[in-house]
Amino acid sequence: MAAEASRTSEARRDAVFGRWVVFSPARSRRPTDLNPGAAAAAGAPKPSCPFCQGRESECAPEIFRVPAPPDASPWRIRVIENLYPALRRDAEPPAPEEAGEGEATPGERAVVGFGFHDVVIETPRHDVRLWDLDAAGVGDVLLAYARRVRQLMEHPAVKYVQVFKNHGASAGASMAHSHSQMLGTPFVPPSVTTRLNCMKEVFERLGKCSLCEFQSKDILVSETHNFSAIVPFAASYPFEIWIIPRQHSSYFHEIDKDMALDLGSLLRTMLAKLSKQLNDPPFNFMIHSAPFGVSSSCLPYTHWFLQIVPQLSLIGGFEIGSGCYINPVFPEDAAKILRELGC
Amino acid sequence: MAAEASRTSEARRDAVFGRWVVFSPARSRRPTDLNPGAAAAAGAPKPSCPFCQGRESECAPEIFRVPAPPDASPWRIRVIENLYPALRRDAEPPAPEEAGEGEATPGERAVVGFGFHDVVIETPRHDVRLWDLDAAGVGDVLLAYARRVRQLMEHPAVKYVQVFKNHGASAGASMAHSHSQMLGTPFVPPSVTTRLNCMKEVFERLGKCSLCEFQSKDILVSETHNFSAIVPFAASYPFEIWIIPRQHSSYFHEIDKDMALDLGSLLRTMLAKLSKQLNDPPFNFMIHSAPFGVSSSCLPYTHWFLQIVPQLSLIGGFEIGSGCYINPVFPEDAAKILRELGC
Ligand SMILES: Nc1ncnc2c1ncn2[C@@H]1O[C@H](COP(=O)(O)OP(=O)(O)O[C@H]2O[C@H](CO)[C@@H](O)[C@H](O)[C@H]2O)[C@@H](O)[C@H]1O
Ligand SMILES: Nc1ncnc2c1ncn2[C@@H]1O[C@H](COP(=O)(O)OP(=O)(O)O[C@H]2O[C@H](CO)[C@@H](O)[C@H](O)[C@H]2O)[C@@H](O)[C@H]1O
Repeated sequence: MAAEASRTSEARRDAVFGRWVVFSPARSRRPTDLNPGAAAAAGAPKPSCPFCQGRESECAPEIFRVPAPPDASPWRIRVIENLYPALRRDAEPPAPEEAGEGEATPGERAVVGFGFHDVVIETPRHDVRLWDLDAAGVGDVLLAYARRVRQLMEHPAVKYVQVFKNHGASAGASMAHSHSQMLGTPFVPPSVTTRLNCMKEVFERLGKCSLCEFQSKDILVSETHNFSAIVPFAASYPFEIWIIPRQHSSYFHEIDKDMALDLGSLLRTMLAKLSKQLNDPPFNFMIHSAPFGVSSSCLPYTHWFLQIVPQLSLIGGFEIGSGCYINPVFPEDAAKILRELGC
Repeated sequence: MAAEASRTSEARRDAVFGRWVVFSPARSRRPTDLNPGAAAAAGAPKPSCPFCQGRESECAPEIFRVPAPPDASPWRIRVIENLYPALRRDAEPPAPEEAGEGEATPGERAVVGFGFHDVVIETPRHDVRLWDLDAAGVGDVLLAYARRVRQLMEHPAVKYVQVFKNHGASAGASMAHSHSQMLGTPFVPPSVTTRLNCMKEVFERLGKCSLCEFQSKDILVSETHNFSAIVPFAASYPFEIWIIPRQHSSYFHEIDKDMALDLGSLLRTMLAKLSKQLNDPPFNFMIHSAPFGVSSSCLPYTHWFLQIVPQLSLIGGFEIGSGCYINPVFPEDAAKILRELGC
């Protein structure tokens, strides 16, 4: 059942931006049931969707499932292998000493495309969106992420796991059925390194974690016992939302059942607010956590959070070239609108 | 004629990724004559296009023009102010000592949205694309960029000028008429800092500039006397091309007439190749140069280049979250296809 690449995956780091890029010819063969012109994922059941209940045999192997009550469907959540993986679990993991060696050209590096690429099917039903589930249902999806991250953490060559969700064609989704993904990489990705360096610099200069306090109530959208949802002070995207644990915590995968229920409730509300305010926009969300095995001196300034990004406009050459974004909506204005919206 | 923002622009740096973001409500009012569904900019003349010859009075003020021979149109290239600027030339430039001060929350920063945002109209004709011009014509556009960068460099508060072009709706373009833009910023943008740090690290470790040599002929697409066009070893995007001066050089704006003619010829060929191979794809190009006023110890490892990025697929949560890209096309394969394509 596994898709065979004519050429195997490879990860390369460039010597100008220091960025890692994953080369994966197999990816170009993945199917899509979403029309790139469509605003967002449509809910109408597709007879051919492999993520629907009853078509489990058309998927790549299951890793685990979250069972449903006996009288309902046979499962509520499935974590499966991605059939068109960017990184391959059967490749030889790069040896630790490979770092910095084998440079073809000054500063460049290539390693085999080892890694894990999984899909989390959030519901057996094609017409249910993540925020249609109740708080406990969303919490269970978050617990499934955390459980799989803990499994991947056991592998000595996995340095980071990026958990993310694509919803809607313009947010990159190729499958309409509600799902998310995670990629376990044999390197620490570029944005994670940048984030840690920036938070470290703030901590060393001011003695404070960047995410433990925020002065202004203007950017707060909602709060629960354990989490705050804000529009960040320097949001890159209009109506971007960060959900941040109120207690300092470095690793997402350490959340317990109560925290997951609380986060599930807040995430559900935020997605419902975005859907209502912006007319079911395409969006991505990403969980930003700490890399595995960082030194304990790093923990005081790493603080995990969940970032939600509605995709309302395209970026252009200025953003690609400079890494600087132009946002037409001030965070205080976006937060006010979202705060006042009943959901 | 200038668009008045209800609220003035502001630039903010976040304390987690260290990214600068420009907030500009005025931007949301800019018009578009491109349909986001369309693959690329269409050439059919629009009676309402302010960039066309004869409608100069509908544009924001002209900065300079490149005249045409007496019997032709009154101009060949116009450099004008952007009518919906992200940064405003009439704002108070941030004082140098503002750096690091005024932090509302640990590590965050806000400055007024001072800066320059200009548009380069590359031709008076609506139906002419940049690569329809001859090599000298493209060279003159490059010389116009360089001339305007040198003017902006004179302003003590401008730290960097990002030159870029958007072509086609999916590459972010809102205007179909062939044009490019530049933004002079009062800060060094995040990607520029990252690039300089990475090239510095390579230089200190290996004693070599990252862009002065590349070992493999496999990634070469074409060469002229002064420039090489390659698909970079770790290209983030399928069919991405970098045009690099063969002689070490830090600043784009120092190119002379001969270099500009040579670059114009190569850029023209590369854009024609992409258009032919990928069926007139939307694309962006960006010029990566050194910030103004860097110390002379920085010059040996900064090497300017022009990056061309066709926009063939959307990115998703993995790329937004991790900064790591998944590219289904190996650079060697893309380079071979582009090399063998006659244009
Ligand atoms: N029968 C089956 N069994 C198991 N898995 C199956 C399957 N059929 C399809 N799949 C997988 O399901 C996934 C669905 O993922 P999404 O819709 O979130 O976006 P996709 O990964 O395609 O690409 C988006 O996200 C990635 C990562 O951000 C970007 O690189 C890309 O440009 C963007 O379009 C695909 O990765 C696909 O390989
Ligand atoms: N009469 C007039 N006189 C002078 N100028 C006029 C004018 N009418 C329109 N303009 C300006 O012309 C420019 C045309 O630029 P592009 O088509 O390259 O993309 P735009 O800047 O709109 O946005 C794309 O590029 C930016 C920067 O990369 C991204 O932020 C954005 O998301 C993406 O859509 C606009 O900036 C507009 O303000």
